[in-house]
Amino acid sequence: VQITVLAGGTGGARFVRGLLRQLDRSAPGAVVTVIGNTGDDAWLFGLRVCPDLDTVMYTLGGGINEDQGWGRAEETFTVKAELAAYDAQPQWFGLGDRDLATHILRTQLLHAGATLSEVTAALCARWQPGVTLLPMSDDFVETHVLVERDGGQVALHFQEWWVRHRAALPAKGFASVGAEAAHPAPGVLEAIKEADVVLLPPSNPVVSIGSVLSVPGIRDALADTSSPVVGLSPIVGGAPLRGMADACLSAIGVETSAAAVGAWYGAELLDGWLVDERDAGTTVPGVAVRAVPLIMSSVDATAEMAAAALRLAEETRHRG
Amino acid sequence: VQITVLAGGTGGARFVRGLLRQLDRSAPGAVVTVIGNTGDDAWLFGLRVCPDLDTVMYTLGGGINEDQGWGRAEETFTVKAELAAYDAQPQWFGLGDRDLATHILRTQLLHAGATLSEVTAALCARWQPGVTLLPMSDDFVETHVLVERDGGQVALHFQEWWVRHRAALPAKGFASVGAEAAHPAPGVLEAIKEADVVLLPPSNPVVSIGSVLSVPGIRDALADTSSPVVGLSPIVGGAPLRGMADACLSAIGVETSAAAVGAWYGAELLDGWLVDERDAGTTVPGVAVRAVPLIMSSVDATAEMAAAALRLAEETRHRG
Repeated sequence: VQITVLAGGTGGARFVRGLLRQLDRSAPGAVVTVIGNTGDDAWLFGLRVCPDLDTVMYTLGGGINEDQGWGRAEETFTVKAELAAYDAQPQWFGLGDRDLATHILRTQLLHAGATLSEVTAALCARWQPGVTLLPMSDDFVETHVLVERDGGQVALHFQEWWVRHRAALPAKGFASVGAEAAHPAPGVLEAIKEADVVLLPPSNPVVSIGSVLSVPGIRDALADTSSPVVGLSPIVGGAPLRGMADACLSAIGVETSAAAVGAWYGAELLDGWLVDERDAGTTVPGVAVRAVPLIMSSVDATAEMAAAALRLAEETRHRG
Repeated sequence: VQITVLAGGTGGARFVRGLLRQLDRSAPGAVVTVIGNTGDDAWLFGLRVCPDLDTVMYTLGGGINEDQGWGRAEETFTVKAELAAYDAQPQWFGLGDRDLATHILRTQLLHAGATLSEVTAALCARWQPGVTLLPMSDDFVETHVLVERDGGQVALHFQEWWVRHRAALPAKGFASVGAEAAHPAPGVLEAIKEADVVLLPPSNPVVSIGSVLSVPGIRDALADTSSPVVGLSPIVGGAPLRGMADACLSAIGVETSAAAVGAWYGAELLDGWLVDERDAGTTVPGVAVRAVPLIMSSVDATAEMAAAALRLAEETRHRG
């Protein structure tokens, strides 16, 4: 069994962890490929930081800070304090010492000519995440956020909007800078085409999954695959499960509801759409909708969600 | 009063600290320029490390690890341990977390197009070393060490020979790679020409002072200046004060003695040569030699050495 998952950061990583537990029970030997969002990537202090890839890697490899859902466990911030003593900017991004080693090594390898795919594979050799982790693209793609300032619009890097301003500046839209000229990383289109099931975890639909879909070829591959594509709603009872997806949805004129997000992905992409019990009765034209508990309160609860998504996939496969 | 000092790492830095204390007493308002060796600089994990410049900066700025004479006080090694967990090489260089912030910022500025002079000035804005610290050159110059291996000769980066092998591999010679095409950094030649006194501290004559002298124009500026040039012997009683200068001297066929090192610099460069009391009676053709206690056992003892060097400078000025 070959399963491909598009993923953002914390939500995607936790979902995949649950999926792996479920597969251990129901389909040992299943092969999972994760296509990670790189639109949140940033250059900080000359180092290439890939928050979503690292969150997946650390979560599946046992190095994650479980409470915050990103960054390393038992982290220290000595380098950050020293950079601040130099008055180096920005100071709003919390780069920990353990985490920094990842960025230092990644940057060294990138400057030496390795692709981000190659670098990610090299880093995963340590973390052994139990999946093949692919960046969505080896090319430069960065999500920028349009906000109003002094009567005009300016574009902020996603991280500045998300981390520095905590998504509190009203977003007027998102730009996937560089996406137009970007190519899917090696293996990405194959992983979608050859998958028995494609899953869209409850990641941010706009800036995580939407960013992955902005790379030319990926959306078409999803639309064209004959295998079932099942999504899990990141919106439960009209609010995001986690994070600030509502601020992103409102910017693109999509209601913060399981139904609206399902419709935004649409029947072109989705065969099945899993919503929380509180959203039972949700319908999405042309898409099979099922309601189950959708709170990732534990790895086991998440494994149950993954099991429900796989069941829905089988259901739609036999129907299709 | 304008004083220019050529300096390596620990020895040079400690000497300048003593010099500044002496000048506080005898010549407040004196301006000191330090021309720092960059031949020990290395790329490690994609970061530009400048051990000698940093040792001067940390020593004069109050951030040095006093016991070891290099690196930061209260240092931790979290990033180093993480890099080792990735099996990143080399693992023999002890990059501390506090120290790393300096290298990260330096590398960021260099990649952004700043010269090493500009970077050094930016870093010194934090440390306020009380001197103008200039790299000997903004161009790439690296000391490599020729050693025998498998019947042939190979060139190791100085740091690999010095730190990894602790200078225990017999050196057949030194190469100042890049020096031929290098230019003195802005202000270096002026600092020598306009100085009232030029001092050569008891730094390693081969790989520290010798590396500075390998940059075309610097040796000539020293030879041509009409102001006194006074050196302090790094060899006391036939052994290096500190470090492994003997391994360097033997490689270039110079005896490990105060007399031999003085003669190696020679009357072309030196007007005065300060040796330790144990080496009283030393003569260097054409150079005024004086013997005083030359052990930098404290800042005050070092200030006394600096005072003696300045007295010898005045003596040679009046004679010349």
